[in-house]
Formats: sequence, structure tokens, C-alpha cells
Amino acid sequence: MTFTEGRQKWLTVAEELATALRVDAAERDRLGESPVRELELLRQSGLLTIPDWGTQQAVTRVIGAADANIGHLLGYHYLQIWRSGLFDTPFETGDNLFWAGVSNPLDAALRLTPVDGGFVVDGRKTFATGAALADKLVVSATREDNGEKLTFLLDGGAPGLSFAGDWNNMGQRLTASGGVVFENVPVPAANVLGAQPDGDGSPRLSLAALGFQLVLAQLYVAIAEGALGEAARYTRSTTRPWFLSGVDTAAADPYVLATYGELVAQVEAAGLLADHASEALLAASDAGTALTVDQRGATAAAISSAKVFSTRVVNDTTSKVFELCGARATASGYGFDRFWRNSRTLTLHDPVSYKAREVGEYFLTGGRAPFTGYS
Amino acid sequence: MTFTEGRQKWLTVAEELATALRVDAAERDRLGESPVRELELLRQSGLLTIPDWGTQQAVTRVIGAADANIGHLLGYHYLQIWRSGLFDTPFETGDNLFWAGVSNPLDAALRLTPVDGGFVVDGRKTFATGAALADKLVVSATREDNGEKLTFLLDGGAPGLSFAGDWNNMGQRLTASGGVVFENVPVPAANVLGAQPDGDGSPRLSLAALGFQLVLAQLYVAIAEGALGEAARYTRSTTRPWFLSGVDTAAADPYVLATYGELVAQVEAAGLLADHASEALLAASDAGTALTVDQRGATAAAISSAKVFSTRVVNDTTSKVFELCGARATASGYGFDRFWRNSRTLTLHDPVSYKAREVGEYFLTGGRAPFTGYS
Amino acid sequence: MTFTEGRQKWLTVAEELATALRVDAAERDRLGESPVRELELLRQSGLLTIPDWGTQQAVTRVIGAADANIGHLLGYHYLQIWRSGLFDTPFETGDNLFWAGVSNPLDAALRLTPVDGGFVVDGRKTFATGAALADKLVVSATREDNGEKLTFLLDGGAPGLSFAGDWNNMGQRLTASGGVVFENVPVPAANVLGAQPDGDGSPRLSLAALGFQLVLAQLYVAIAEGALGEAARYTRSTTRPWFLSGVDTAAADPYVLATYGELVAQVEAAGLLADHASEALLAASDAGTALTVDQRGATAAAISSAKVFSTRVVNDTTSKVFELCGARATASGYGFDRFWRNSRTLTLHDPVSYKAREVGEYFLTGGRAPFTGYS
Amino acid sequence: MTFTEGRQKWLTVAEELATALRVDAAERDRLGESPVRELELLRQSGLLTIPDWGTQQAVTRVIGAADANIGHLLGYHYLQIWRSGLFDTPFETGDNLFWAGVSNPLDAALRLTPVDGGFVVDGRKTFATGAALADKLVVSATREDNGEKLTFLLDGGAPGLSFAGDWNNMGQRLTASGGVVFENVPVPAANVLGAQPDGDGSPRLSLAALGFQLVLAQLYVAIAEGALGEAARYTRSTTRPWFLSGVDTAAADPYVLATYGELVAQVEAAGLLADHASEALLAASDAGTALTVDQRGATAAAISSAKVFSTRVVNDTTSKVFELCGARATASGYGFDRFWRNSRTLTLHDPVSYKAREVGEYFLTGGRAPFTGYS
Repeated sequence: MTFTEGRQKWLTVAEELATALRVDAAERDRLGESPVRELELLRQSGLLTIPDWGTQQAVTRVIGAADANIGHLLGYHYLQIWRSGLFDTPFETGDNLFWAGVSNPLDAALRLTPVDGGFVVDGRKTFATGAALADKLVVSATREDNGEKLTFLLDGGAPGLSFAGDWNNMGQRLTASGGVVFENVPVPAANVLGAQPDGDGSPRLSLAALGFQLVLAQLYVAIAEGALGEAARYTRSTTRPWFLSGVDTAAADPYVLATYGELVAQVEAAGLLADHASEALLAASDAGTALTVDQRGATAAAISSAKVFSTRVVNDTTSKVFELCGARATASGYGFDRFWRNSRTLTLHDPVSYKAREVGEYFLTGGRAPFTGYS
Repeated sequence: MTFTEGRQKWLTVAEELATALRVDAAERDRLGESPVRELELLRQSGLLTIPDWGTQQAVTRVIGAADANIGHLLGYHYLQIWRSGLFDTPFETGDNLFWAGVSNPLDAALRLTPVDGGFVVDGRKTFATGAALADKLVVSATREDNGEKLTFLLDGGAPGLSFAGDWNNMGQRLTASGGVVFENVPVPAANVLGAQPDGDGSPRLSLAALGFQLVLAQLYVAIAEGALGEAARYTRSTTRPWFLSGVDTAAADPYVLATYGELVAQVEAAGLLADHASEALLAASDAGTALTVDQRGATAAAISSAKVFSTRVVNDTTSKVFELCGARATASGYGFDRFWRNSRTLTLHDPVSYKAREVGEYFLTGGRAPFTGYS
Repeated sequence: MTFTEGRQKWLTVAEELATALRVDAAERDRLGESPVRELELLRQSGLLTIPDWGTQQAVTRVIGAADANIGHLLGYHYLQIWRSGLFDTPFETGDNLFWAGVSNPLDAALRLTPVDGGFVVDGRKTFATGAALADKLVVSATREDNGEKLTFLLDGGAPGLSFAGDWNNMGQRLTASGGVVFENVPVPAANVLGAQPDGDGSPRLSLAALGFQLVLAQLYVAIAEGALGEAARYTRSTTRPWFLSGVDTAAADPYVLATYGELVAQVEAAGLLADHASEALLAASDAGTALTVDQRGATAAAISSAKVFSTRVVNDTTSKVFELCGARATASGYGFDRFWRNSRTLTLHDPVSYKAREVGEYFLTGGRAPFTGYS
Repeated sequence: MTFTEGRQKWLTVAEELATALRVDAAERDRLGESPVRELELLRQSGLLTIPDWGTQQAVTRVIGAADANIGHLLGYHYLQIWRSGLFDTPFETGDNLFWAGVSNPLDAALRLTPVDGGFVVDGRKTFATGAALADKLVVSATREDNGEKLTFLLDGGAPGLSFAGDWNNMGQRLTASGGVVFENVPVPAANVLGAQPDGDGSPRLSLAALGFQLVLAQLYVAIAEGALGEAARYTRSTTRPWFLSGVDTAAADPYVLATYGELVAQVEAAGLLADHASEALLAASDAGTALTVDQRGATAAAISSAKVFSTRVVNDTTSKVFELCGARATASGYGFDRFWRNSRTLTLHDPVSYKAREVGEYFLTGGRAPFTGYS
């Protein structure tokens, strides 16, 4: 099987799962239940095990278009495995396991206390997408004795670990993005992947933050693609032509058609920009320890550019599609507002104005984004 | 008490009720219960009895900003009394009664059968905002014997009248906008207000449709105003400054401030345009039977202009305000998405492209909008 | 003659002059000659002598729509007389004289040296719109001996005054907005209107800067109105229907109509917002020395709101109108690009982002704009 | 030399020529002289002879960013050679010759009269970009005897050919896009490339129209890139920081930076979308006579998508850049308005609304654009 055939095979699997997810996406959004069953579908599909970066990204878009929650879990899963590999320490990804992380940069750090054979970790973190459902967790914490920031692996069922189940937001409702509590959780020394230097010490390790930014951009595009697809199905099947339009079907209305055209064009553009950023990050990641701050800076700018643009596009698209469907498409049963709610929630991850600023600064002066949890 | 004092008094009453409505607006939206208690508050406030058009419009905006559902009920209530007055037949508005209407132009017409002393009416209508809660209903139906289209009054508790309770949409959830079933409902001859000629026969009677378009525009502005106000309270009290902003409070962030400025400017502009349209409609209404098709055409264009512009503004504003509040403002408890959901639902009442077309045609060629249920 | 009749009379005069100005507006823009003849037309029309604020503003819009250059000269003329009246010192406006000012706040101040009977003034200023053609100049300068900032009147032909004629910009080409050189120009003490305190000392005198901001907003609206009017004439008379449109005239094209509608709606909104700001400034001006910093702050915010919004609208409108006219409308003979060039030039007077910030700050925190040459 | 090295070599040549063109681009735009000297520079650079499609497109962008006129001539030159190759008849491209075409689809067709050894051609065409300067012309005309539409080659100096020199428009002033008059111009039979069937007869030949649409999209992107580059040079070197900004240089102003970021992101997206469309057209062209209507339809949609999106982006970008430069950047000497004038002129080639409609129809229903001179 060639590489292209391999990717095509996974895309077919993803499309099939996407079709299944779409069936009850609105219903599941309404119920707001934890995505246990959907995670099981992911596992059964084999999609968790895709090894290739480009295919991972493409599959994240397909799943994210059908259900932004599950796309989010999947995209982050790939990222956690990838970012673990930025350290020199080898580890096993395991057999079809689901990975998640615990690392909201705006919370106070978790505390690592050295003990025999490793550490114990204590503290609380918020917004840990998928953590409550994960087989493997990638966690960052700070050693109390020397201030070193370590990243390490934990089993999802590690003793002392508990999940607040407190994610109750207007969008991405099924991502299990609640808080995590660590009480004396043991961390064997062998689980430590390595230390993350402060500031600009390691361009390579700094890529982790960029990975999350990229996956967010991919999810924004995916949500926009999903909204357009769902709207098109509705317009074709259900929307009634306006009585002043002079045409027999809504799909022949001049305004409906041109508005679709405007939206489709910008979503396609956003998709290509995200793909471009994805390739840049792969190249930076492949550069390994040879990654320069210059390449890292260019990569960050490419990703921020994709994030800025896709933020505008997805919020616009998920709101405008209603004009293509008509008043009856607001019935709760369709749940079409979930696209906008997911978009609006996810695009607030960190303020887009500061990403725009980053892109502008890189373009105007060559100034590179600092190494932070968000850039 | 001067006229201005009178208006100010009512605005104060409205502001007090608005403050009360805001307290649990998010909670009520979540529960989706029928606004029985809120209607009682409207009654107790006396706002249902305001006789002056301009004050009615201003009060609709104040209430609609706090709770678009209740603003919707109130704005339509005023309209039903006003449109009943476009006919020559006198009627009693009653003592602090709540009025609603049954007249979705896209449904098949109700059927009137002549009987001794009047008619009976049969059929079903959808989307009758507030009807299930109304004391008085303004209804339109077509005589089966001669095809005449009559408008008449019914008591909310008339025998044979039942309410489907089937309004379950993503926005304006508390407007009781479900369907109404008429089974052999008696209509005494004295309740008939008059006949509505087809086509452009009566400019005066044709104003009814324009009234609804205007009130929709007012509600769009109100929702935008409400979203800005709620966002501002949150930004001031809760939003944390971004760690790269270099300022101590979110309310000093340059991007937050400029974005507020852009939104405020356009919402103010939308408000003035709606006020302008409101004055045009009052003048047309005051012209009575002397209303010309020219003045009617200019009035329709002014109202459509307000509707087109406020549609853009409210959808934009209710989505962008989240960028002024930050990620944590998406927590379900705040229910801030209700502004966008209400906006997006209500702005689909009829397609904005055709309203834009109307405005353009009037400007470009002087072509007047036809007399329809939407123009 | 009632007040309303008076205003109507002046509007009729303005419309007639506007019609005349439109005839060769494109040609004059191309030639870039000093507007000596047009100023003479202004004089002959009597429009320079209008005493009423509201009529002045309305007439500025009418003339500015036909020719933004002449509208600019006229709007500033009214302002110079008005701002001279903010001081307590009486002065004569003269008989049908044309006023202009010299006061770019970003230049170094002119220097006043006390001499017998008054002062002499020296220095250079840039961007003094209309000054080279003015009968009367309002000038501000700083006393070298005590640092006091004085405003005074000069005759346009005062000895020692010369004009650089160096205004050569892409827009507002006919406004004679070049630099002015003062060499030992005598300023009789009787010409001094008064001193302008630093900082927030005099709300009343601080209104001068707001006046210029308001007139800029009015001109933005005027340019947008002018562009729409000119485009409409062209669409009706000249644009050919697109061969795929299925309609016989461009004026029946669904996209042309809806785009006109969108633009008309926003230009109307901008016009009302500018009118609203104008009324606020008149009220502030009428308050005289009783003007509070609160009212001054609210007035500044209203004007900035109008400026922010009309900036967006005019740049958008003057560019989009081409899509309503078609490719042949780019022929140089029509000179339709002058609307955008005038708009783009005039809207850069001072950065709109900082105006948006001002509006946002006032709305969010009540923070009032500082008293500066621009706010 | 590898393929990549080859492309890089040409890009370096293009960058050098671009640098030279930028030096006096504003001055040449003002003078409006025929681009004889610049065409000579193109010839000397060897860029006219690039054989590879992808390199042609990339070079068109580089040259078009520096001078949209010359980019236009070059992009169309490549296209004329390419479209000639869509016929089966072999022909010589000659040695470093400059090609142009005569084929405005909205004019009446030229008339071909059969004579011994071929035809003579008569008639007039408008808007023949570069024709007056071309060594080789690709011309389409209709046989008077049987209505067949033939495409053939002519030497630029063919007897009976004359050029009206009547291109005098607000943008793309240096493209020699005037009319052409044919009086009894001989067309040897050997010059005939072939016949173009009506309707959807030949997907392959129908690609010619798509080629022009694509090159227009590329030029839109190029103009946007050029405007951003020129603005950035100005902001860095000349723009003064606003006195309320609290920063020392305009390049540190938060609004300037974020606005650059927004614009850069959308221009990058537009560039990728145009590249994507270019690859689609190359694939369609490479398919030769095996090209299906399905692939042709998908290709047309991809190109229209790029055209719709880049139209919005370039008009927005070329107007907004002024806000990044400030008021003094409107001085005529800089000629920065040429970017917008070029953009606005070129984006009116055919109405963007109908392109949006095309994209929407393909997305919504799979409906393919008809084969016309514009799609």
C-alpha cells in the first residue's frame, strides 16, 4: 500500500465514522453526556493509531466537521503523543490508547515533590480536555525543590487522580473539558519525559504550544466545513423558496447561491491556510534539536495566521448559514446552533487580537513570538 | 405632567422592570418555561397600557434589551392594538389586557363560515407569538363564501381555541410562539374590524405588515444593546487581563476598548435608524385614509432599511461580545449565548436579502415594495 | 418665514449649487486647480452667511456630496466662525467673507512676540485647509514670553503671510490644504479672541477640536451619499445587464439591487448618527460656560462614535459602488475614484482606532476623552 | 539543475526585476505612458520564455506585486501561449516574443472572410490588454460564410491592424488595454489554430476562459501582496507614532500590528487559494482531450472560488493599508492609491456576484458553470 493509499484508507474510515457521528450529533449535544460511546467508536475505528502527521490532521478535520467535540478529543490525542516525542525520552504509545493532557498555562502549576523512585504530584488544574476519559495523560508540573518544570506521563486511572466533571459551557459540551485534582499522585521516575526550560531555551520543546494552536485552527476550519455541509443538506431538502424569489426551489435562489459561494470560498481558503501551517509545524518538528529560533518564529507566525483567519471565518460562517436555511431551521431539533456555539467557545481559547498582533509583528518587523503556553 | 415627563416616567418604570428581568433571564432561558410570571410583571407595571407610539417603541427597546422574549411580547402587544385601530370600526382595548395576534402569512388562511350573528372560524396557524397567553387576539381569516379577508377580535379563552405549545426553537424560547388550532370558534359580527383588500387597495391597512417589520428592527437593536450592556458588566467585573497585554485590567486592554467602540458606534447607528423608521411609520399611520402610496412606499423603505442594517449589527454584535469577555464567559451559567440565539432566530423572520433588495430598488428606481404580509 | 421654511430655502440653494458643482467635479478633480471659482459660487449663493447650526450642517452634507472639496471648505468655514464665538470677545463675521483656520495640532506652535499694540507672529504650519483663499483666518499661537496659547483673527491678506501651495495629495485635491508661512505678521491686540488653557481647564473652549471631528464625520457621510447618488445615475443610465443575469437592465439585477440596499441602509444610519452628534455639540455649545466636563465627555463620545462609524461606511461605500456600475465605470472621464480618494484621504485625518478606543472607553468605564487637538 | 533550482532561479530573476519596477512604479503610473521600456526589461530578463506553468504563475505574482500593469501583461502573455496549445495545431512560440490576445467576449465578433490561402479579418474589439505592444496576437473571429468560430495567430505588425490607444482608466493604466481595429487583415490558413465549438462541445478548449479567470485571481493576490509590502516599508521608515499610543514607533502600535496581522492572514489565505486553483487548472490542461466535464466543472469552481475570495481581499487590503501608514501617506508622490485603483479596476473584469453564485451552485447542487467567455 502506498503512502497515498494509506492516507486514503484512513480518510475513508474517518468519513464513515463522521457519517455515524452526524446522525445524533444534535441529540448528543442537547443531552450533554460524556462522550464515552463516541470514544469507543474512535477506538474501534483504529483512527487513534494513525502514525502520520498529515493524515492525523486531515482526519481531525473530517471528524471535527461531523462533531467538533470528538474532533477536538482526537486532534488533542494525536498532539499529546506527538509532543511527548519532542523530548528525548522514549515511551510506549500503547495499543489503541486514548491520550489527553493536563496543562492549562493560566492555572497555577501542579507541585511535584521528590520521593523514592520518583515524585508525587499535587494540585488542581482546569479545562483539561478529555482527561477524564483518557488512558494516558501528559502532565506538566513544577518541582517544589528546585523549580524545574517537568513533563511526565500518567495512567488515566492513577491513584489520587480525580475529575471535577465541571465542564458546563455553551459549546464543545461533549469534550469532558473539566478540572482535574491531583492528591499525592505517584509519578515513577521512568514516566518523566524531560524538563521544559524557561523562556526560549529549547525551540524544539516550545513547539508543543504551537501544536495546540494549530489543532485549534484545524478545528475552526472543521466546524465551518461541518456547518456548510449541514446547511447544504437542509437547503436542498427542506428550505422553501421565498415567495418573492421567482424560483421554485431555495437551491435556485440567487441570494442563497451567492452567499454559499462567498462562504465556501473563505472556508476553502481557511482550510488551505491551516494545511500550510500544518506542513510548517511538521517541518519544524522534523528538524528536531536542529530547529532554529528563526524557523520556529516562522512556524509560529504561519500557525497564528491560520488561527486568526479561521477564527473570523468560522464565527462568520456558523452564523451566516442560517440565512441559507431559513426561519424553520432554528427549531431545536436540528440543533444547528451547535456549530456557532462550538465555534464561539473554541475560538475564545486565547484572544485572537493578540494572535493578529503576533502575525503583524512578524510581518512588519520580523519580531518573533515569545515562547509561552500560547505561542 | 408634560409629554416628556410622561415618557420619562414610563421609561423609569421600564428600566425597573428591565432590571428585574435581567436577574434571572439566563435561568429562564435555560428552563424554557412559558412567560406567565413575566407577563404578570408586565401587567403590574402598567406598561401594557402606554398609549403613545414613541413611548411604546422606546419601552420595547428597554425591555427587549433585558429580555428579548418579553420585549417581543410587549412590542407585538402594542402593535396589535395599533393595527386594530387602522380599521374604522371602534373597539375597546380593555383594562390592562395583553394582546397578541394570529396571522402567519405563509400559512394557509383560516376559514370563516357565516352563521347567524356572525361567523365561525376553523383552521390552524403556526408561529403565533404570545397567543397562548393573550387576553385578546387579533385574527385574520378568509370567508369561504366570498373570499373576503376579514380581521376580527377574539377573547383568548374563546371556545374551540386551542394552543399547540409547539414552539421549541433555539432562540426567543420564552415567547410562546407556537401554533393555534381553531375548531368552530364563534366570531360575533361585532368583533369584525373590517376587510383587508387584496393588493394595493388600502395603503392604510397595509401598514400592519410594516408595523411588524419595524418592531422586529427595534428588537434587533434591543438585543444588541442588551448584549453590549451585559458584556460590559462582565468585562468590568470578571474578565482577566491577558498576560501579554501589559495592562492591569481587561477594561484597559487596547483591543477590548477599540472593539467596544466599534460595536457601540454601530449599535447607536442602528438605534437611530430604527427610531427614524418608527417616526416614519407614525406619520404614515397618522395620515389615516389620506395616506398615499408614495408615502407608504417611503415608509416601507425606511423600515426595511432599519431592518437590513440592524440585522447585520445584531448578529455581529452578539457574536463579537464574547471576544470582549474571554473564554470563561462561555460557561453555561451566564447564558450569554442567548443574545446570539435570540438574534439569529428573530432575524430569520423573513429573508434579509429581499429586504435589502427592496431598499435598493426604492433608492435606485423609486420602485415601491408590494403590499404583502412582509412588506 | 418660519424656521423650517428658512432651512428649506437654504437647502434649495444648496441643492442648486450642488447640481452645478457636480457637472464638472470630475474634471476639476483631474485638473487639480485651486477652487477660486467655486469659492466665488459659494459667495454668490449666500451659503457662507447661514447663521443656524443645524442648517449649516445639513448644507455641508449637500455640498459635500456633490464635491467633497467644496463641502470641506464650507464646513470648516462655518466652524471657524463658530469656534471664534466660544471665546468671550466679540468680533465681526463680516459681509459674506470666507473663513479658514491655521492650527494643525501636530506641528510646532507658531510664536507670538509681544509688540506695541499687540503681537507679531512667526513660524510655519502645514495642512491649513482653505487658508490660502480665506478672507479671514483663525490662528492659534503661543506667546514666547509666557507660554500662553492665544487664538486670534487675521485678514487673509495680512502682510508677512505666505502660502506654500504644497498640498498635492491623492484626495481632497481642491481644498487648498497647503502650508502657511508667517513672517513677522502683525496681530493687533483687538484681534485676540482669548487664551486657551492647557488640559481640561475650559470645557467650552475645548469644543473647538470636537467641532472639527464632527465636520469630518459629516463630510464622510456626504462623500458616501455622493458616491451612492452618482453610482445610481450611472447604473440607471449606462450599466449594461450582465449576460447571465436574466434581466433586461442592470437596475433589475438582484445583486445590484441588494447591494444598493445594504449600502443605502448603512449610509442612512451613518447620516443619522452624524446628525445626532451634531445636536449634541450644539447643545454643548449652547451651554456656554456652564458646560460641564460630563456633558463635554458625552458630546465627545457621540462625535467619536459618528466618526468611527462613518469612517467604515464611507470607505466601504466608495469602493463597493463600482460593483454596481461595472467595468466601464472605471474610465478616467467619469472620475468615480475621486469619492474613494477623497474618503480615504479625509478619513486618515487622525487614526480611527484611537477614536474607537475613545468610544469604547466611554461606554465601558465612563472614561472621558482628554482635551486635545483631536478630542 | 533540478526543477526546484530552476524555479528558484526564475524567482530570483523576477525579484530583481520587481525591485527595479518598484523604483518608479508610482511615477510611471502618474505619467501613464505605454510600458514600452518595461516590456523591454521583461524581454531582457528572459521571463517571457519560462516554460513551466507553476513557475509562470509564481513569477506573475512577484512581478504583479511590484507593478500590477506589468504583471498583467506577463500573466496574459503566458496564457496566450498556453491557450494556443489547447488546439491540436502546432505553432512556434518564437524567440523571446511577447504575446497578447484580442478577444473581449462582450464585443461583437470579428468577421472572417475566406480568401485564397486563408481569410481576411475585419472589425473592432475593445479592451485588448497588451495588444498594441505584442509581437504575436491570438485572435478569435467568426467566419461569415458558415458561422464557425476560429482562433488564429497574427503578427503584431500585420497589415491592416491598428490600435486605438483609447485605454484611459483609473487603474491598470499602463497595460495598453485599448481597442484594436482590423481592416482586411490577411490570415494565412496556416495561422489558424482551430475552431471553438459552441456550448459545451470541448471541455479542453473551454479552459481558455478559465485561464484568464485564474490569472486575474493571481493578479488580485499580487496587488494585495504588493500593497502590504509597500505599506510595511512606509510604516517602518516614515509613519510617526500617534501621540496617544504610548509607544515610540508606529511599528509598535498595537492597532497597527493587529491590523497588519489581520490583513496578512487573509492575503496569505488568498494566495494559497489561487495556488490551489492554479494546480487544478494545470491538471485539467494536462488531461488534454481526456478532460471530462466533471473535472472541468470542478476546475472552474476552484478558480471562481479563488477569484471571489481574492476580489474581497484585495479591495479590502488596498484600502485598509492606508490606516497603517497615516495621513501623510496620501501625498501624491507616493502614489499608494495605485494599488486600490488597480485592484478596483481589475476586479470589475466581470461581476463577482455571478462568480460567487457559480461557486455556491457547484457546492450546493453540483451544478457546473456553463462554457462562456467568462466561465
